[in-house]
Amino acid sequence: MRKGNLMSFRDDIKVFDATIRDGGLCNNFNFTDEFVTELYKTNIKSGIDYMEFGYKASKNMFSKSDFGKWKFCDEEDIRAIVGDNKSDLKIAVMADVGRCDYKTDFLPKTESVIDMVRVACYIHQIPAAIDMIEHFHQLGYETSCNLMAISQANLDQVTQALTMLSASSVDVIYLVDSYGSLYPENALELAQVYLKTVENTGKKVGFHAHNNQNLAFANTIETLSYGVSYLDVTVQGMGRGAGNCSSELLLGFLKNPKYNIYSLLKFSEKYMTQLKRDGVTWGYDLQYMFTGLLNRHPREAIDFTNAKRTDYSEFYKSLLENY
Amino acid sequence: MRKGNLMSFRDDIKVFDATIRDGGLCNNFNFTDEFVTELYKTNIKSGIDYMEFGYKASKNMFSKSDFGKWKFCDEEDIRAIVGDNKSDLKIAVMADVGRCDYKTDFLPKTESVIDMVRVACYIHQIPAAIDMIEHFHQLGYETSCNLMAISQANLDQVTQALTMLSASSVDVIYLVDSYGSLYPENALELAQVYLKTVENTGKKVGFHAHNNQNLAFANTIETLSYGVSYLDVTVQGMGRGAGNCSSELLLGFLKNPKYNIYSLLKFSEKYMTQLKRDGVTWGYDLQYMFTGLLNRHPREAIDFTNAKRTDYSEFYKSLLENY
Repeated sequence: MRKGNLMSFRDDIKVFDATIRDGGLCNNFNFTDEFVTELYKTNIKSGIDYMEFGYKASKNMFSKSDFGKWKFCDEEDIRAIVGDNKSDLKIAVMADVGRCDYKTDFLPKTESVIDMVRVACYIHQIPAAIDMIEHFHQLGYETSCNLMAISQANLDQVTQALTMLSASSVDVIYLVDSYGSLYPENALELAQVYLKTVENTGKKVGFHAHNNQNLAFANTIETLSYGVSYLDVTVQGMGRGAGNCSSELLLGFLKNPKYNIYSLLKFSEKYMTQLKRDGVTWGYDLQYMFTGLLNRHPREAIDFTNAKRTDYSEFYKSLLENY
Repeated sequence: MRKGNLMSFRDDIKVFDATIRDGGLCNNFNFTDEFVTELYKTNIKSGIDYMEFGYKASKNMFSKSDFGKWKFCDEEDIRAIVGDNKSDLKIAVMADVGRCDYKTDFLPKTESVIDMVRVACYIHQIPAAIDMIEHFHQLGYETSCNLMAISQANLDQVTQALTMLSASSVDVIYLVDSYGSLYPENALELAQVYLKTVENTGKKVGFHAHNNQNLAFANTIETLSYGVSYLDVTVQGMGRGAGNCSSELLLGFLKNPKYNIYSLLKFSEKYMTQLKRDGVTWGYDLQYMFTGLLNRHPREAIDFTNAKRTDYSEFYKSLLENY
């Protein structure tokens, strides 16, 4: 059943800005401090609820010299931007199962400016994800589980994973369309499975879209209108490959007057325009449509983009041959 | 009620390529004969059902020296491309109410290679549109009525217009989201009103989308899944302002094996890439999102684009001031 209509607003909605984290996959997290600071201020002015600063990646696995600082999100780096974060905007970071040192790299919440830790995993990593979630919960953080590549998981496994998560301390369970392959009809069906599982648990459901088939915004508002409440966006859709649901589209759609797009436009025209001039690329294009359509990881499409190829038909044929 | 699902296909679907007509608004209809010929061949290979060649505009009102030939669609110009059109692809042209000489400029169907005439009008022009439709029907053509700017019409008037059209000889009634301002929820509600009105008349309902809010494809498949059957597309979404629903996205979605995207990609990589290199512009951008969001004509956004402005926040503010 629809949870609202175009003449109402729901105050359970949380708009979650993932620009630095998902957008960081386009530029190896090499944002200037000015960019991140201005985005932080912009998010506050725009009424955004959460801002993700990046990954807490393992320094044993990844070298600090290969990435910008937001791959690691050291406490002091976040504080250099937000101070003690005297605002209503909550601070989040992402921790990938198997690619972070979660036992050592997180302070107790009382000593950290971070509010939420999002644990990203594939379906077979659910047991590990739950271990991490319980650890972060013990430390005092809000937690989410971001179950990736959902379009490739089988429904039995998804149901089992959701049952396990429902029994855990996790606060938010995210449906993540990593490959941008869901149509609104699929996204809604899956969202309803998630929503049903968390009924009466107090847990929330989130949606993270990719724009491979130009459906990131459409899928977001489709799932939203049936009860999904944590909605990931990025400024101008900046994110890996075809990118994500655009902040401006979602804020334009939402009827709650706390959200407004004007500050976002000021930020966009200065900083996003500059990023594009600097050659950072993302967004809908044919090669990403193909991988979305074929329900697979965008890596070959990203290579195609980086090689500045335009032989779409050959590329499509090669994907079909490796189906 | 849904008319199908993601594991079925409906053979009442007609995919309608409007590239030359709506795309012509981006380049004053100055396509080369090679472009139009190759698009015609591509449409045949791709399984497209109709191809619109352009407008039949009044030569009294518009000068042939100001536009490419597809603003006028002379019989001999179409025949220079298609011969006698020995194919399953049907040929269409558009006639605007008040901007064509319909009594003099159309041959009887038996002497023409044109199959369908689409009559475009605003809601207050319905009586004139019906007069034209009856004329074209008498001449032997299939006809459609493309009721534009539907997001600004009031529902009482729409219902009255639909009742009048139901009693006419028209074959297809189009819901046209000229301003790209409909969300899938709105598009569906309107489509259901259209579908209800034509029930048991044998008439069909079509949808023509604009991509101002990145919803052209989403709205098309939403209305499709509830019974709309004539679906307008353009190659790479080429069309006025933010453009239309992309042929490649829709053909990728449709499950009927008669449709395939490979030929379309061959065409795109050669001809659409060249058009873009030549500086022809269309597609989603912030300025079009604003006019879609505010439910108004994109003309100011097109001026903004042509002036190569990037001061999005000022532009948005100016639109709000003239709301």
